[in-house]
Amino acid sequence: MKRKGCLIVVSGASGTGKGTVCAELLKKRSSLRYSISATTRSPRAGEQDGVQYFFHSRESFEKLIEDGGLLEWADVYGNYYGTPKAPVDKFLNEGQDILLEIDTQGALNVMEKMPDGIYVFLLPPSMEELERRLRTRGTDSEEVILRRLDSARGEVNAAKKYRYVVVNEVVKDAVDTIDAILTAEHAKVANNQDLLDKIAGL
Amino acid sequence: MKRKGCLIVVSGASGTGKGTVCAELLKKRSSLRYSISATTRSPRAGEQDGVQYFFHSRESFEKLIEDGGLLEWADVYGNYYGTPKAPVDKFLNEGQDILLEIDTQGALNVMEKMPDGIYVFLLPPSMEELERRLRTRGTDSEEVILRRLDSARGEVNAAKKYRYVVVNEVVKDAVDTIDAILTAEHAKVANNQDLLDKIAGL
Repeated sequence: MKRKGCLIVVSGASGTGKGTVCAELLKKRSSLRYSISATTRSPRAGEQDGVQYFFHSRESFEKLIEDGGLLEWADVYGNYYGTPKAPVDKFLNEGQDILLEIDTQGALNVMEKMPDGIYVFLLPPSMEELERRLRTRGTDSEEVILRRLDSARGEVNAAKKYRYVVVNEVVKDAVDTIDAILTAEHAKVANNQDLLDKIAGL
Repeated sequence: MKRKGCLIVVSGASGTGKGTVCAELLKKRSSLRYSISATTRSPRAGEQDGVQYFFHSRESFEKLIEDGGLLEWADVYGNYYGTPKAPVDKFLNEGQDILLEIDTQGALNVMEKMPDGIYVFLLPPSMEELERRLRTRGTDSEEVILRRLDSARGEVNAAKKYRYVVVNEVVKDAVDTIDAILTAEHAKVANNQDLLDKIAGL
């Protein structure tokens, strides 16, 4: 029997650096696949459909919801975001690890459907640093920044529902820790029953 | 509040290479402390009291048992082995990680008293390889080797009670995996409540 892959969900408040950390993690761990989200938000400069996101109209996204084609979806600041279910199931059944980079609301929804997933909450070093990062990013209006900061405080409490928390102070350190988490999860007894049976000669 | 240390227990059948793996792990992770076992077996060439083991007479070991000074103890092939309790408690309270390298019987006993410990079962790549290693080591009689091999098959079943299993095929790989396990355990939400409260401003 082929070992199933692990689902790893990296989540955290806006501005925590999920995107950068996940991109570096994918470089470091080449066997890890990335789950491409679906969204109705407009592409940012340089973003391509089917690479960073699957970009949808509201109509086609709502059709996906109706068809049960999303593992989770949420309306965040007026845009839909969601995780297509089919590719996740396919990778896991093929024994491939798959990475979901999603916001806290989405992660909490996936948690209910896939409780065996590895849930990692990425933390900013402090709320002051989070504010600085949001302002430096320069993609949001003042109103959105204040809303994101307010939301972030509540999201830190949601972190207690996750399995792991990682502080993203230095990107490399955060990436190394998540990489170690995947290595450790692969070594869990529950993921090695076949190996144990083989060595015991069963 | 100071974070408590983690107890990591590395265990496995005789000849799996526990000693080598633990020695390399201690070199790699300098903050990790080693719990020195007590035993009544005779020192091997080069072993010193208080370094590899605390060497005891049967009488003084039995006094330790009576005084409740051992976290676990067992009679293995006619010799007592045990884990002094006081140093383990002291290191954990000081926030230091501590490594116990003990046989399967001892680990199962510690597991009952310290269920929050990190239990790692070290596996040989195969039973054939384990037999080869036991013969190469040259420290046991033919009778003892056969007894150890017979015991090893049963011990692999006990592995299912552990949290992690690691195959010791290449020492460096086994050490890296256990090192990753410690990193991952430090990132567990349960070990980071203070950090979450601090960042949420509680």
